Amino acid sequence: MTATPTTLRHSRDIVTPALRAALDRLDETSRARAGYHLGWTTEDGEATAGGGGKAVRPALALLSARAAGAPAEAGLAGAVAVELVHNFSLLHDDVMDGDTLRRHRPTVWAVWGTASAILTGDALLALAQEVLLESGSAHAVAAGTLLASATRELVRGQMQDLAFEHRTDVTLDECLDMAAGKTGSLLSASAAIGAVLAGAPDATTGALATFGAQAGIAFQIVDDLLGIWGDPAVTGKPRFSDLQARKKTLPMTYAAGRPGPAGERLTAWLAAGEKADEAGLAEIAALVVAAGGREWATEEARRRLRLAESALDAAPVPDAPRDELVALARYLVNREA
Amino acid sequence: MTATPTTLRHSRDIVTPALRAALDRLDETSRARAGYHLGWTTEDGEATAGGGGKAVRPALALLSARAAGAPAEAGLAGAVAVELVHNFSLLHDDVMDGDTLRRHRPTVWAVWGTASAILTGDALLALAQEVLLESGSAHAVAAGTLLASATRELVRGQMQDLAFEHRTDVTLDECLDMAAGKTGSLLSASAAIGAVLAGAPDATTGALATFGAQAGIAFQIVDDLLGIWGDPAVTGKPRFSDLQARKKTLPMTYAAGRPGPAGERLTAWLAAGEKADEAGLAEIAALVVAAGGREWATEEARRRLRLAESALDAAPVPDAPRDELVALARYLVNREA
Repeated sequence: MTATPTTLRHSRDIVTPALRAALDRLDETSRARAGYHLGWTTEDGEATAGGGGKAVRPALALLSARAAGAPAEAGLAGAVAVELVHNFSLLHDDVMDGDTLRRHRPTVWAVWGTASAILTGDALLALAQEVLLESGSAHAVAAGTLLASATRELVRGQMQDLAFEHRTDVTLDECLDMAAGKTGSLLSASAAIGAVLAGAPDATTGALATFGAQAGIAFQIVDDLLGIWGDPAVTGKPRFSDLQARKKTLPMTYAAGRPGPAGERLTAWLAAGEKADEAGLAEIAALVVAAGGREWATEEARRRLRLAESALDAAPVPDAPRDELVALARYLVNREA
Repeated sequence: MTATPTTLRHSRDIVTPALRAALDRLDETSRARAGYHLGWTTEDGEATAGGGGKAVRPALALLSARAAGAPAEAGLAGAVAVELVHNFSLLHDDVMDGDTLRRHRPTVWAVWGTASAILTGDALLALAQEVLLESGSAHAVAAGTLLASATRELVRGQMQDLAFEHRTDVTLDECLDMAAGKTGSLLSASAAIGAVLAGAPDATTGALATFGAQAGIAFQIVDDLLGIWGDPAVTGKPRFSDLQARKKTLPMTYAAGRPGPAGERLTAWLAAGEKADEAGLAEIAALVVAAGGREWATEEARRRLRLAESALDAAPVPDAPRDELVALARYLVNREA
């Protein structure tokens, strides 16, 4: 596990007060909903001890500033902004997917209705740009443009995800493209935004963006693996939930595309659309293994991790932030939840 | 009707190509949904002859640049951005209100589902900032900040609107505050953003913002009046739809808050929540008149219009754009749909 959780803890110590200060600017209702969503309060608005999730994106943003030779604080507005965009996206995702639980708690829409969740997400997206543009950085325009285009890419990925639900001929390339949009784009922007705010040259911001994009795809692949083989006690999601929903995840899409009986049975199962019990789903998971889906995905995540690491070699990144970026990416790929 | 429709037509001629160019940057699905929403295409993606709505906000943005002594084109990125934010808000509104028709056509969520409408709105909001920040204006940061804070204000107003549905003690002040957020904030930003992009002094942008905010409240009051007494053939909405939904509109809130039998019957009716037939709704509308709600709202819209006009006196706005701004505001208050 290396020292990475320290990086995350340290960045949360810096980012949380700034994130709270940003949320204070929201209207009372959006602020209350966002505070609940982040795990800072109960449904009744009472303060809780924990909350906030892993906060990987803000940690990347702070490291990104250091990678450009600036202090971590130069990336702080970017760290807050990417965390706001991430949570905007989670709030809307939960509405769209009809998910009633997140981090073991009822989702905002499940408690206060879909309109409330949609509006809170909208407010967070607007606030993200405001925080960036008011950062005082001479490079706020470039950072704001990066964040806006990453948001559009994120939407692109989610639109693809949506379209895939109604298709049975999704290719692995399409699936990887979807992951690049849905997960890679915001991680890429997170890994670059601190350097952009610090005024780093294009070679540095480009290398960091590639690092984040590749680490993001690895992250999504691991998410997909955990969605099938993760321990429900650790992930907080029901066992085989991605299978039950017949999601075109990366291991599934790879496996269903393979010649031979296992691939063919998976293709037929995806097309049929019947409900399955836990034993049936365990059998499907075994077919994904038999067709090589689990092995391919595990190796592909490692390959993307290597691409991420080697991207950093293209830029003059100081050793300390480089080591932390690499350790953080490895942690994301080796995590269990 | 004065010459105002010419102002609107002229601004649409300038803004539409720029708006189309902006939409071209969206992913294919968001672009198709947005094009349909704007009335540019049919459900099947075939081009239509018309579309686009009144486009009041872009016209204000172009006039705003001229009010600062700059050419209209200096406000073009702002014009596109405010129209994108307006349509983001309409797409999400239709989902939240469950409205199946807009401008006599099925809404995006009604055709393609709520997820598609939420994502298309999200993409438009991100794109709005991108267009502004890439405008090349030396004042893009100030313009982006203005747009983001107006978006948050818009969310604030909609959150209030949502909360009012479950309350029977909404005051007139709360209702006016809601209108200032829901409608005033984006009209205010529209009226100021061209001047901001042109680098006008605070006195000018402030006067224009006040003009837009007051005209926006007048606009909302007229919307509320048309929602009760408008001609369905002209407005495109079912007769008495706002009454049927028991909306806390401004004329209704004023009337229900009056002492005397008409006000008391309205208060009781709002609290009861029964369905009413057209004859019953006509009776409710008559009670709003009897309690003075229609007269108060009509006069209040005129008063806000005067406040808007006098705000312009506080700044050195050239005659031609001032006359067009005033004519546009009067048109908004005197419109029939």
